Amino acid sequence: MKHSGNHVDNLNIAYIGGGSRGWAWGLMSDLAAEESLCGTVKLYDIDFNAALDNEKIGNRLSERTDAKSRWRYKAVENISDALNGADFVVISIMPGTFDEMESDVHAPEEYGIYQSVGDTTGPGGLVRALRTIPMYAEIAENIKRYCPEAWVISYTNPMTLCVRTLYEVFPKIKAFGCCHEVFGTQKLLAQAVSEILGIEEPHRREISVNVLGINHFTWIDRAFYNDIDIFPIYAKFAEKYYETGFAEKSNENWMNKYFSSSQRVKFDLFKRYGIIAAAGDRHLAEFCPGKWYLKDPQTVHEWGFELTPVKWRKEDLKNRLERSRRLSSGEENFVIKETGEEGVAQIKALLGLGDLFTNVNIPNAGQIKNIPLGAVVETNALFSRGKVIPAVAGELPWDVHNLVIRHVYNQETVLKAALFKDKDLAFRAFANDPLVSASLDDSKKLLDKMLSATKKYLPGWEM
Amino acid sequence: MKHSGNHVDNLNIAYIGGGSRGWAWGLMSDLAAEESLCGTVKLYDIDFNAALDNEKIGNRLSERTDAKSRWRYKAVENISDALNGADFVVISIMPGTFDEMESDVHAPEEYGIYQSVGDTTGPGGLVRALRTIPMYAEIAENIKRYCPEAWVISYTNPMTLCVRTLYEVFPKIKAFGCCHEVFGTQKLLAQAVSEILGIEEPHRREISVNVLGINHFTWIDRAFYNDIDIFPIYAKFAEKYYETGFAEKSNENWMNKYFSSSQRVKFDLFKRYGIIAAAGDRHLAEFCPGKWYLKDPQTVHEWGFELTPVKWRKEDLKNRLERSRRLSSGEENFVIKETGEEGVAQIKALLGLGDLFTNVNIPNAGQIKNIPLGAVVETNALFSRGKVIPAVAGELPWDVHNLVIRHVYNQETVLKAALFKDKDLAFRAFANDPLVSASLDDSKKLLDKMLSATKKYLPGWEM
Amino acid sequence: MKHSGNHVDNLNIAYIGGGSRGWAWGLMSDLAAEESLCGTVKLYDIDFNAALDNEKIGNRLSERTDAKSRWRYKAVENISDALNGADFVVISIMPGTFDEMESDVHAPEEYGIYQSVGDTTGPGGLVRALRTIPMYAEIAENIKRYCPEAWVISYTNPMTLCVRTLYEVFPKIKAFGCCHEVFGTQKLLAQAVSEILGIEEPHRREISVNVLGINHFTWIDRAFYNDIDIFPIYAKFAEKYYETGFAEKSNENWMNKYFSSSQRVKFDLFKRYGIIAAAGDRHLAEFCPGKWYLKDPQTVHEWGFELTPVKWRKEDLKNRLERSRRLSSGEENFVIKETGEEGVAQIKALLGLGDLFTNVNIPNAGQIKNIPLGAVVETNALFSRGKVIPAVAGELPWDVHNLVIRHVYNQETVLKAALFKDKDLAFRAFANDPLVSASLDDSKKLLDKMLSATKKYLPGWEM
Amino acid sequence: MKHSGNHVDNLNIAYIGGGSRGWAWGLMSDLAAEESLCGTVKLYDIDFNAALDNEKIGNRLSERTDAKSRWRYKAVENISDALNGADFVVISIMPGTFDEMESDVHAPEEYGIYQSVGDTTGPGGLVRALRTIPMYAEIAENIKRYCPEAWVISYTNPMTLCVRTLYEVFPKIKAFGCCHEVFGTQKLLAQAVSEILGIEEPHRREISVNVLGINHFTWIDRAFYNDIDIFPIYAKFAEKYYETGFAEKSNENWMNKYFSSSQRVKFDLFKRYGIIAAAGDRHLAEFCPGKWYLKDPQTVHEWGFELTPVKWRKEDLKNRLERSRRLSSGEENFVIKETGEEGVAQIKALLGLGDLFTNVNIPNAGQIKNIPLGAVVETNALFSRGKVIPAVAGELPWDVHNLVIRHVYNQETVLKAALFKDKDLAFRAFANDPLVSASLDDSKKLLDKMLSATKKYLPGWEM
Repeated sequence: MKHSGNHVDNLNIAYIGGGSRGWAWGLMSDLAAEESLCGTVKLYDIDFNAALDNEKIGNRLSERTDAKSRWRYKAVENISDALNGADFVVISIMPGTFDEMESDVHAPEEYGIYQSVGDTTGPGGLVRALRTIPMYAEIAENIKRYCPEAWVISYTNPMTLCVRTLYEVFPKIKAFGCCHEVFGTQKLLAQAVSEILGIEEPHRREISVNVLGINHFTWIDRAFYNDIDIFPIYAKFAEKYYETGFAEKSNENWMNKYFSSSQRVKFDLFKRYGIIAAAGDRHLAEFCPGKWYLKDPQTVHEWGFELTPVKWRKEDLKNRLERSRRLSSGEENFVIKETGEEGVAQIKALLGLGDLFTNVNIPNAGQIKNIPLGAVVETNALFSRGKVIPAVAGELPWDVHNLVIRHVYNQETVLKAALFKDKDLAFRAFANDPLVSASLDDSKKLLDKMLSATKKYLPGWEM
Repeated sequence: MKHSGNHVDNLNIAYIGGGSRGWAWGLMSDLAAEESLCGTVKLYDIDFNAALDNEKIGNRLSERTDAKSRWRYKAVENISDALNGADFVVISIMPGTFDEMESDVHAPEEYGIYQSVGDTTGPGGLVRALRTIPMYAEIAENIKRYCPEAWVISYTNPMTLCVRTLYEVFPKIKAFGCCHEVFGTQKLLAQAVSEILGIEEPHRREISVNVLGINHFTWIDRAFYNDIDIFPIYAKFAEKYYETGFAEKSNENWMNKYFSSSQRVKFDLFKRYGIIAAAGDRHLAEFCPGKWYLKDPQTVHEWGFELTPVKWRKEDLKNRLERSRRLSSGEENFVIKETGEEGVAQIKALLGLGDLFTNVNIPNAGQIKNIPLGAVVETNALFSRGKVIPAVAGELPWDVHNLVIRHVYNQETVLKAALFKDKDLAFRAFANDPLVSASLDDSKKLLDKMLSATKKYLPGWEM
Repeated sequence: MKHSGNHVDNLNIAYIGGGSRGWAWGLMSDLAAEESLCGTVKLYDIDFNAALDNEKIGNRLSERTDAKSRWRYKAVENISDALNGADFVVISIMPGTFDEMESDVHAPEEYGIYQSVGDTTGPGGLVRALRTIPMYAEIAENIKRYCPEAWVISYTNPMTLCVRTLYEVFPKIKAFGCCHEVFGTQKLLAQAVSEILGIEEPHRREISVNVLGINHFTWIDRAFYNDIDIFPIYAKFAEKYYETGFAEKSNENWMNKYFSSSQRVKFDLFKRYGIIAAAGDRHLAEFCPGKWYLKDPQTVHEWGFELTPVKWRKEDLKNRLERSRRLSSGEENFVIKETGEEGVAQIKALLGLGDLFTNVNIPNAGQIKNIPLGAVVETNALFSRGKVIPAVAGELPWDVHNLVIRHVYNQETVLKAALFKDKDLAFRAFANDPLVSASLDDSKKLLDKMLSATKKYLPGWEM
Repeated sequence: MKHSGNHVDNLNIAYIGGGSRGWAWGLMSDLAAEESLCGTVKLYDIDFNAALDNEKIGNRLSERTDAKSRWRYKAVENISDALNGADFVVISIMPGTFDEMESDVHAPEEYGIYQSVGDTTGPGGLVRALRTIPMYAEIAENIKRYCPEAWVISYTNPMTLCVRTLYEVFPKIKAFGCCHEVFGTQKLLAQAVSEILGIEEPHRREISVNVLGINHFTWIDRAFYNDIDIFPIYAKFAEKYYETGFAEKSNENWMNKYFSSSQRVKFDLFKRYGIIAAAGDRHLAEFCPGKWYLKDPQTVHEWGFELTPVKWRKEDLKNRLERSRRLSSGEENFVIKETGEEGVAQIKALLGLGDLFTNVNIPNAGQIKNIPLGAVVETNALFSRGKVIPAVAGELPWDVHNLVIRHVYNQETVLKAALFKDKDLAFRAFANDPLVSASLDDSKKLLDKMLSATKKYLPGWEM
């Protein structure tokens, strides 16, 4: 790469999971909208054809006159080709297929265990982690070998365990996990500010927050709009919409009802604990005791959100495949616009093109006092040239800490289970997950069934 | 009190809850069997007549020729009369009556929540704690005023929170909590040693163990009989009896089926975690996620123990009242024998009549590395003249720690709820208890109902 | 105060020590050079006439056409007049006079103890702290009473203990200590970069550093110019100039030889410990064992710096008084230019006019892992609207930590000695200071003499 | 070995340094005075003839009719012969000869650095550690290979670093360090009790103390005789003898004036810090800043102790060699009596022949809160069958901690310097030692000279 004034050229980005039909397109769009960078994106995917499609889509986009910068997209067949010389590595992979995810999410329903997402925690998140960790371990080994100095941005769920695996395998890796769930909470706070104070809705970046927790179960204990303390405002807002929920106006384009939420979970957690949970309700619910918000579909509905069926994801995938075809053939064109994700802004900050203070998932080095050092936590950090400097975030209140810490410990068990291919360890974590409300016998049966459904991705396990 | 050689005379013991028809009689028997001490026991009870009965029973016992020492028992009407001049204070109180306990234990059953004991944790233990903590706070204030230098031995459940309250209110108190559950586990290990090695059963005192955890949910991570490591022995034993359970031979006299257990819970925890849970199964089960061992009466039965109905306790109380009448009238006589409790041995050690190394419940000052300082933990300690010196016990394995720590945090919430009379805090702890498997709405209703049933003992609460 | 776009009007600044003829003039200059702010500065000083002089000087400056903003300066007779309504409080006081400082610095010389500055640590810093802490305690009380929400910027030495006192007396205070010593080190690193790489000298702001330690004894364990690691560069530079020292080119105008240094102390510490000490050699030397760099004037000279005699300060004061007269009468005019201090930049950042990432002295909340929580440390922090967010700085290497931690502990003793007016505690700290190389008897005599020389400022002490 | 009732036969003890003419004879005497043990002692020494002499001495002693038990002593030529089958390993070696020690102790005097012992800390202790650590590392390797389950009792100075090395090299070793300095302090407290209360002097075992610190610089923060708090008694005693010192009555037989002390150092530390230093003044003085008690021989004398010249040790050695000749030839006979050392009592306790609660040097696992885990600390512990259970000792007061912790950190540096044969690291520790009051240049020269004098024992070092 080459710095020249406020511009960096010849940047090399390796995209692992480069056949992605979601995050990859978002990155293409964000890169095309950014005038201060240009370079090459190497697309590596176990589905090489998908990478080839994205190569076409990316290059077509890059050639458009409304693209603010030129990027060369190149599908590569080996991960080493992607990583060699990379300045940045982006990882967004699908661990397995929606068939495995169907088991992750729906197999537990037989035992009365419901999951709204099933990719982060709970039985589904756990089994997904068992699949994903060996993949991430291999990626970490490759980064160590081919580009140990590169910055690594990880988007895959389960976020915490993916980042944790990277550091476990290659402790000197310069990696972090990115997630937009806190942004959504900032937007909600902006709406609360607007509604309660009767002013125009601020941009979510104007809502400054102190973030502390673990990904998808992180919390905000201080929030300001300019000098205005948002807590009393949010208290009124949460009270006002506690029963009815607060319907989001936007987000109706590509998402659907399965992704919407009326924030009642967040309001309830706020009422009970006095601090703001900073993720979507669908994620938050899965970290809480199963009986609270996910007891059964009726309870879920009453709390104003829905369970996302994997059937819908499969349907949606068909649409995306079709769209991929249209985009690669030129039948359809992207509208170039910023996605709201911060990956490109983070890259710029790390290149020295402007500091960025935002939330990020990295190992705890003192950010959160009452979480063990080394566990991956989500807090704010300052992105600046060549470094990510974590902010001291303080500590979670005792009771909220009690909800969070059990996942921190459980995640460590899942990590070990995956690395050692140890079913007993996996069961320890499984039986101790707050969503797993079956008897021990049933839990064993369920785990067996789920592992069996995903066994193709568990090489070396004794089952 | 007065030391003379290996004898201490004129000892003053204050017994709070001195009308007790269980622990008090045990203490009388143990004192009568001990030749190196004599003195006065002042019996204070809110039921003064019960104390008067015990005065008679105690003095009658003391006059017997087979009593090895002379004690004067004296019922007193005010707690100050008991505490003034006391060298030792024994506390064993019943917080409320069996009517309140009936609600503690059985009200949750409506919502599918079953409890085997209901006096330590779970919804019943929590509500019992709310009743007990203000009583203990008052006792602590009185000790501070009347006998700040006295040693305080506490037997009441919930043990951890009772001891915690004493230190919260009077940080310089010299108090500790005693419990025989670890002794029972030592006996089980002795039986395992005997059976697996084909040798005579050692005395439980010959089974040396490292103890770490919280009362009724404490653990043993090292156990030796002489130089023999008991862990591989116990592993065989647990395997052998995993399915059938191991039936205790003894304990059939006054206890009954409601108190028996076949150790299957202990065996299961050992199989899964590799360390030995050191309390009765009935207690252990209540600290675990509700679905594990207490899902429903059928599950409980399969795990080889039973739910103790409070109806039985009421019936048993009638028998004890009748026995009290017989004992105080002289119709019946005690057989003087050591009960197996260690209260008197601890008193002797604290008086300098021989060191004692045993388990005890006191605030964490470094005994357990991964439990917050100040939380009351159960570990070994050396009792020696004028001091209780806690042993460094190490740390719980990560996964077991994850089961224990949530209770440590929850107990702090219960403490605050009781001291501040704060229903919201009580609900935080309640909803987060691993046994409470109702929806949030139902949990609220249940807590309301339970508090209402015990409201006589919650003065000052807004309900 | 009033925000309007990128401008804040009607700002209220209270200047405690507002008669200052150094820092105050610097602030006036920096304010006059800043176009985005305007408002009032209230000058409070125990020497009211000095404040009046500065009122004239400030207002005269503000009326000039080259002043970019208008400020009204107002001397006030009571501290409450200054603090009432203040948005910011600046504190830069002289604790006592140069007569007391003369004793601080020179009395120890009788016992072979030499000090290059004598205002931070060592016997002089300690006695100065005993004078200063009660003054700061009183200021903290007044801030709590009159403007608890104001931001407080402290410049007085001993910096660490001044800030520590503010938080001890008023834990919710929003205070921080500012010091330019790290800036000087950044400049040195910029010169090293320039010389070793043969490029133009970067601005010190382009040298990014990770700062960790305590004021005047803080350290840099990572330093970058763009993506270039400065450590190997500095290693060459330090080697090159190890024997001769590196003569600064600048700083010859108002400072003099007593303030110059040839960086040999810094180079020696780097050679021995491998990390960069980040303060002037005159300060660093005083924190080290006395024999290292301050054994005697000859040793000092060999290490390339000088002892600053208080006689010189007295002489210099005369010049400044004379200059004050000229400035207030209009005989002389300031050249308005930025001083290089960051106070105004920090004010702007806290008002939301642009983030600032810089070093600052605040209580440890996790910034440095191996320094006790609550001790005042110097690390980087992000200044942003309404908040100072400390960065996680990591931990000092074991051996450097060993040099630093003794001062951290000693400072706590000094704090207590001052607050409790306890000479025994003062002597504990005194005898344990690495500069105090007298026998215990002589040390006692010396401390007595020094306390006596400063007794006017130690009301309530028994001596 | 073989247990039979209260007797253990066929015990195998390996004595490393078995040619010792001090500790070895003491052990022989203590073993001969103990009736419950018998077995074999294998004597290994790099001076095989010395071991042979001791073989004769030991066997001659064992055959005497007044010996209460029979032991077979056997000199062996290889360490493996000693360790194979050992139940206990005793290590008491002389690292180098008195020639090296002469340099350790006296070379620094040229630079005005005086040492009263020179075997634990200070320049002499440091260089001795550099010689000893590789020897201990080798012993640890051999123990790991030949008798990993054996208990290891270490007597060599520097005690802390010897034990630390054993654990560094073989973390599972069952080793501890023994020292009688605390016993001496208990005796002093017994004398204080006797004198101040006008009662007969209790046995030092009746003085119960809480011990916390590092070997030769450990402290007592609670001390009781029966129920009597010794602190106010000791305060009076220290005040009474502060000026004159307190002359010990005993210890006049084989020791001489070089070992006597009048406790003034201990009294001074007590006056200043309020807790009791628990080692001989000669040792304590060496851990304090050099100017306090060891400024020069005159100061030492005024503080009531003396510097022990190595010349005297050489003379004494001649006497001991001569005595060895007499003992091995039968010209002289031991008087069998207990030495007051606890090695045999510890062995008995570890064999299950009676618990022992005493002070010991082992890695910190929570005994002392404010010393890093893993550092070797001296506190009480319970010796019981098969285990040494450390007591929770609490924490040192802040100011005393400040004196101790610098040595803890410095010792870690010395350990690394020795293991890595790194002179720069050695100098870091050297220059930071509180006794080293030379300039940096002189310090370097001194260290060079001292290393050179000991270079025979520093194989592999670049010098």
